[in-house]
Amino acid sequence: MKLENPRNVPEKLLLGPGPTPVESRVLRALSEPTLGHLDKDFVAIMDETRDLLRYVFQTKNELTVAMSGTGSAGMETACVNMIERGDKVIICTHGVFGTRMVDVAERCGAEVVTVSAPMGKPIDPEDVARAIKDNPDAKVVGIVHAETSTGVLQPLDDIAKAAHDAGMFVLVDAVTSLGGMEVPVDRLGLDMVYSGTQKCLACPPGLAPVTVNPRAVEHIKNRQQKVQSWYLDLTMIMRYWGQERFYHHTAPINMIYGLNEALRIIAEEGLENRWRRHRRNAEALWDGLEALGVKLLVDKEYRLPSLTSIVVPEGVDEAAVRKDLMSQYSVEIGSGLGELKGKILRVGLMGSGSNKENVVFFLAAFGTVLRKQGFGADIGGALEAVEKKLS
Amino acid sequence: MKLENPRNVPEKLLLGPGPTPVESRVLRALSEPTLGHLDKDFVAIMDETRDLLRYVFQTKNELTVAMSGTGSAGMETACVNMIERGDKVIICTHGVFGTRMVDVAERCGAEVVTVSAPMGKPIDPEDVARAIKDNPDAKVVGIVHAETSTGVLQPLDDIAKAAHDAGMFVLVDAVTSLGGMEVPVDRLGLDMVYSGTQKCLACPPGLAPVTVNPRAVEHIKNRQQKVQSWYLDLTMIMRYWGQERFYHHTAPINMIYGLNEALRIIAEEGLENRWRRHRRNAEALWDGLEALGVKLLVDKEYRLPSLTSIVVPEGVDEAAVRKDLMSQYSVEIGSGLGELKGKILRVGLMGSGSNKENVVFFLAAFGTVLRKQGFGADIGGALEAVEKKLS
Repeated sequence: MKLENPRNVPEKLLLGPGPTPVESRVLRALSEPTLGHLDKDFVAIMDETRDLLRYVFQTKNELTVAMSGTGSAGMETACVNMIERGDKVIICTHGVFGTRMVDVAERCGAEVVTVSAPMGKPIDPEDVARAIKDNPDAKVVGIVHAETSTGVLQPLDDIAKAAHDAGMFVLVDAVTSLGGMEVPVDRLGLDMVYSGTQKCLACPPGLAPVTVNPRAVEHIKNRQQKVQSWYLDLTMIMRYWGQERFYHHTAPINMIYGLNEALRIIAEEGLENRWRRHRRNAEALWDGLEALGVKLLVDKEYRLPSLTSIVVPEGVDEAAVRKDLMSQYSVEIGSGLGELKGKILRVGLMGSGSNKENVVFFLAAFGTVLRKQGFGADIGGALEAVEKKLS
Repeated sequence: MKLENPRNVPEKLLLGPGPTPVESRVLRALSEPTLGHLDKDFVAIMDETRDLLRYVFQTKNELTVAMSGTGSAGMETACVNMIERGDKVIICTHGVFGTRMVDVAERCGAEVVTVSAPMGKPIDPEDVARAIKDNPDAKVVGIVHAETSTGVLQPLDDIAKAAHDAGMFVLVDAVTSLGGMEVPVDRLGLDMVYSGTQKCLACPPGLAPVTVNPRAVEHIKNRQQKVQSWYLDLTMIMRYWGQERFYHHTAPINMIYGLNEALRIIAEEGLENRWRRHRRNAEALWDGLEALGVKLLVDKEYRLPSLTSIVVPEGVDEAAVRKDLMSQYSVEIGSGLGELKGKILRVGLMGSGSNKENVVFFLAAFGTVLRKQGFGADIGGALEAVEKKLS
């Protein structure tokens, strides 16, 4: 076999919707020696990782684990464990990931009632309240907290209250919010929340943190049907992460080291400091982008601090923008997904990537690329706006 | 939060059923910089990894990928994609992993006919032929090539022929054989074969190599029902690994680097050299163990070169043996699973772990630990037997 030698893995600045920049400390942790999945020293690392996950989820939930798959495996974990064939569920869709949740739930045999909002807008809690009233037999309300396809931050307070008042479970996708802003697990009693490691946790992709409250655990334990996925069956996985150390499958040992280190970095910074940092740098980016002369997709009130969607200005070729950013500056940003394909660009400032240097560098590079396409970006004005916000 | 500082990840010699020793080259590859999952440099690494997987699977199958989960996710991938609700399938059980396959298939809604053999024995091809004759409406025959719970190597030739003659698909678990011995994918036309990275491929756990032949791909494309797992749905995943680069989920980037490096190591050694090495060192271990005075569970003809099951001698406390090996020599071996719990010890010689030094060291350590329990192990004789075989 002809092999390129050595393997070519250049450094690039990941400012897309994920994966996000990974600190050397985390990369180094990945290459610590592999231990057995039942080894006492590995089990100690699992226990510490679980405690750290409880900290970032702000929860006391006993059942808090890292599933052995990427964020989408987290979504599937939530659906296969909470839903039985024939169950009615309400799912909110205001982007690609809400729509994906409908697909996953339907594959679990659920009858799905959808509550929608246009891409770029949040779900109206009134609409959810109405769906709950119209479908009192629904068991679960599923919703995406941070829509990675649009950059919308979905307020959860009213929706969680309405669902709980009706005796339903609330299942939340926090893939792009966890570690970058509050995910109010215990405050709102969210029943099952999942995330991914490659966003604001700033770890490579490969694990899906999941937390489940005691009420949902009881529901899962009392299922009539077996969980349709053996691999993601929490009734067994909780016995591996618990004291029993029941062998289920071989955990992705080295990925757990990486997650452990990424979570240690978060604990050292302090969760609230980290949230503030994400917010502050995002606001600087927004001000800079507006001064540059481009429009943002989402109203300020509903913008994610981790991910910003820029409306592609008329006459600008978005694919060429992304190509230039990569070839000229080694910067990756994201394109639009679904019906927003070609219409927006997505810029992530997550984990260690959320810093002033990246805001300044991105605006400078992006402005230059736009000017090349004839769009009169005001780079000087943009950088002044950043200085004003961050100095 | 109180954190142990630094994280404690001691070096241990992994001679259990997996994970197995991981070379520094592979560990270092894990910490190469994270790239985007659609980045052209990452895509080039995916393509090369797919070519290398085809080499270790000895196949020309276009659909050859690494699924984003551990070996058990490979098993689930095979079942959810090949089986539709109501399908009849024949599954061979001669250990814990065959039994697991029954469980996974039943969760897919299959009607399962089982063909069994006692743990420690291979499946009799005559029994499979009879089941095929009695169940002509079955669509799939599932079988474990290398039973990790017993150390049995299952001959596949006759079983594959009988299944194919009846128009059925053959689905094979090669978790503990791939990379350590021949897995006759194209030679026998095996329709879907899956493995894990943490055995003879000598990479940390976290990915499941899967290969599917064109006939099975056609079957999957013509399914009446959607694949019940969104995460493991090959109809979408083949579009990400193929030229289209359709976004499905964010691949575990750094784990792919590790697998790429582990497969490069295999290509450098040469697959057949690697098989010979595994065989030679296993035979030395067997001779050494017999000279030591212990019995092996499996008849020589059906022993795996990667994993050896030792019958616990009467009067010996197997848990104390494992504990002593770990505390005195930092060596991990495996206990029995299922009905063999407490009755056998499992010793793996996989990947770079299959070498003369480990055979000698293990026999010396194991013999000493047995002698401590009053079992008169002939350590000198064992080491002479190894010398005779390997010098």
